[in-house]
Amino acid sequence: MAKLTFDITMSVDGLIAGPNMRPGKGLGDGGERLHEWAYGLKSFREPHGLSGGAVNADSEVLEETLRSPGAVVMGRGMFGGGEGPWGDKAWGDEPWEGWWGDEPPFHMPVFVLTHHARETLTKGETTFTFVTDGIEAALEQARAAAGDKDVAVGGGANVAQQYLEAGLLDEFQIHVAPVLLGRGVRLFDNLEPGQVELECTRVIESPAVTHLKYRVVK
Amino acid sequence: MAKLTFDITMSVDGLIAGPNMRPGKGLGDGGERLHEWAYGLKSFREPHGLSGGAVNADSEVLEETLRSPGAVVMGRGMFGGGEGPWGDKAWGDEPWEGWWGDEPPFHMPVFVLTHHARETLTKGETTFTFVTDGIEAALEQARAAAGDKDVAVGGGANVAQQYLEAGLLDEFQIHVAPVLLGRGVRLFDNLEPGQVELECTRVIESPAVTHLKYRVVK
Repeated sequence: MAKLTFDITMSVDGLIAGPNMRPGKGLGDGGERLHEWAYGLKSFREPHGLSGGAVNADSEVLEETLRSPGAVVMGRGMFGGGEGPWGDKAWGDEPWEGWWGDEPPFHMPVFVLTHHARETLTKGETTFTFVTDGIEAALEQARAAAGDKDVAVGGGANVAQQYLEAGLLDEFQIHVAPVLLGRGVRLFDNLEPGQVELECTRVIESPAVTHLKYRVVK
Repeated sequence: MAKLTFDITMSVDGLIAGPNMRPGKGLGDGGERLHEWAYGLKSFREPHGLSGGAVNADSEVLEETLRSPGAVVMGRGMFGGGEGPWGDKAWGDEPWEGWWGDEPPFHMPVFVLTHHARETLTKGETTFTFVTDGIEAALEQARAAAGDKDVAVGGGANVAQQYLEAGLLDEFQIHVAPVLLGRGVRLFDNLEPGQVELECTRVIESPAVTHLKYRVVK
């Protein structure tokens, strides 16, 4: 069966963004250092509409994470503003179109968890469908849209944590960047792991980053 | 030159002990799960006076971490009680001899950071020397005792963090256990990383644990 997966880059001190997240600085102070391993890769540049880039072990891992899912679920903060850490933006009379511009890098159906109903938004090959009735309903819609392919949790970390705590996450991969951020947003914060057991199913290393893949044993 | 190093086991959610640390439960609730990768290894059992045990990639890593240092620096909480999280124990008229019993597993000179001067305590092949004038003085004494060998920070995490922030730590190794603890003690908490850069110098994996070694680039 198709899986629910999650991929994220984390610092050695367990953070996925620096402090002081704000518009134009969505990764917080210093947070862009986390993703330095990815920016120069062909598999990062291509979905962002850029040519060239390196092909190596890291680009293969990234390509796999981009190619495996057929749909994405994400929190509204990840779509852009609103329930994110910098308070509400113009989502009322004047619909806010998120962070992702006219050609978002997803190129597939995206389901956004929110408390505010609105019409589906189409941007290039990406559709943003807004789901107001919770994580299970969003997953069900995403599974239907994904067909035989996996569903990826697109973030933020709190949404991934909710799926993990609910026993719905099948596997996740952490890209451990050789960075210490000190302060910022934790990947897992006061998790309620219950009876969750993990199995490390794959380790891929490069000078730039270490990719650790875990299966959730249910 | 001999290095200052630090080795610790961490959960996937960045914790090195569970919640509710207390006497007899120094790793907190569930914290012993972190170290399951080590208990059955020959290189763990031997310094604890036990026979038998597995020899594999994990036991080699552990053996290396035990064999490389010629002296240890540790916080008083790690020695046992006192400045640890469960309040002061009998350290006054009646000297408290720590957690480690009559044959501690160190078998080398250990320098304990404390605010309370006391005589050096000898237990089997281990000596505990109590240092009241700070982390640099403790390191200097440990280096002298270690000769050509490395000095290891024996913990706790807060002591390792102090050495890292002071620019004195040369390398550290995190044994990432496939465990989610949810709550407990963080490896790095509100670190002041300053200009510290890391380089991942080695990754060793097994089904039980992933060993990530980092060099601090100064």
